Amino acid sequence: MAEKNDDEHTVFVGSKPFMNYVTGVVMQFTTQNAKEVVVKARGKFISRAVDITEVTRKRFLESQVELKDIRIDSEEFENKEGKQVRVSTIEIVLNKK
Amino acid sequence: MAEKNDDEHTVFVGSKPFMNYVTGVVMQFTTQNAKEVVVKARGKFISRAVDITEVTRKRFLESQVELKDIRIDSEEFENKEGKQVRVSTIEIVLNKK
Repeated sequence: MAEKNDDEHTVFVGSKPFMNYVTGVVMQFTTQNAKEVVVKARGKFISRAVDITEVTRKRFLESQVELKDIRIDSEEFENKEGKQVRVSTIEIVLNKK
Repeated sequence: MAEKNDDEHTVFVGSKPFMNYVTGVVMQFTTQNAKEVVVKARGKFISRAVDITEVTRKRFLESQVELKDIRIDSEEFENKEGKQVRVSTIEIVLNKK
């Protein structure tokens, strides 16, 4: 669910239970002491990424984290039927206050 | 589909056909000569708002508009069963270059 590299704590949002992701973000800030966590999602999971961010910053880590940046983008690729499709992406950067 | 006030051209994204909204944004920039258009959505329509923004800025108005700002927020309210629920919102601001 959560992936980490040297300079970035990231949570990729998919179809697992909602609270898994909220807990993932909270744990990165608390037990892993991250200064910044990036919530990422693609396509229909973008709405969920926003929900997870909102619940995290307004309920679980109220007054402890803030929105630093929101980036949206999209990628075009060829699907199995050979048709060009576009999928949108979002990256929401949360910062420890 | 689209609502306008004096200082803001806004498109509210819902369940109408996808291209209605894309056309709505494009028309505000072209026939209505808007300098700025705000794409707004709530809950599950947030993903669609991002898709609409991406298709508009990367295909229909490529190199003519740019992303100026993305805001996310949420509101808590009581539903019909008397339960507290939270709904997320997004506002994506597009700017004529």
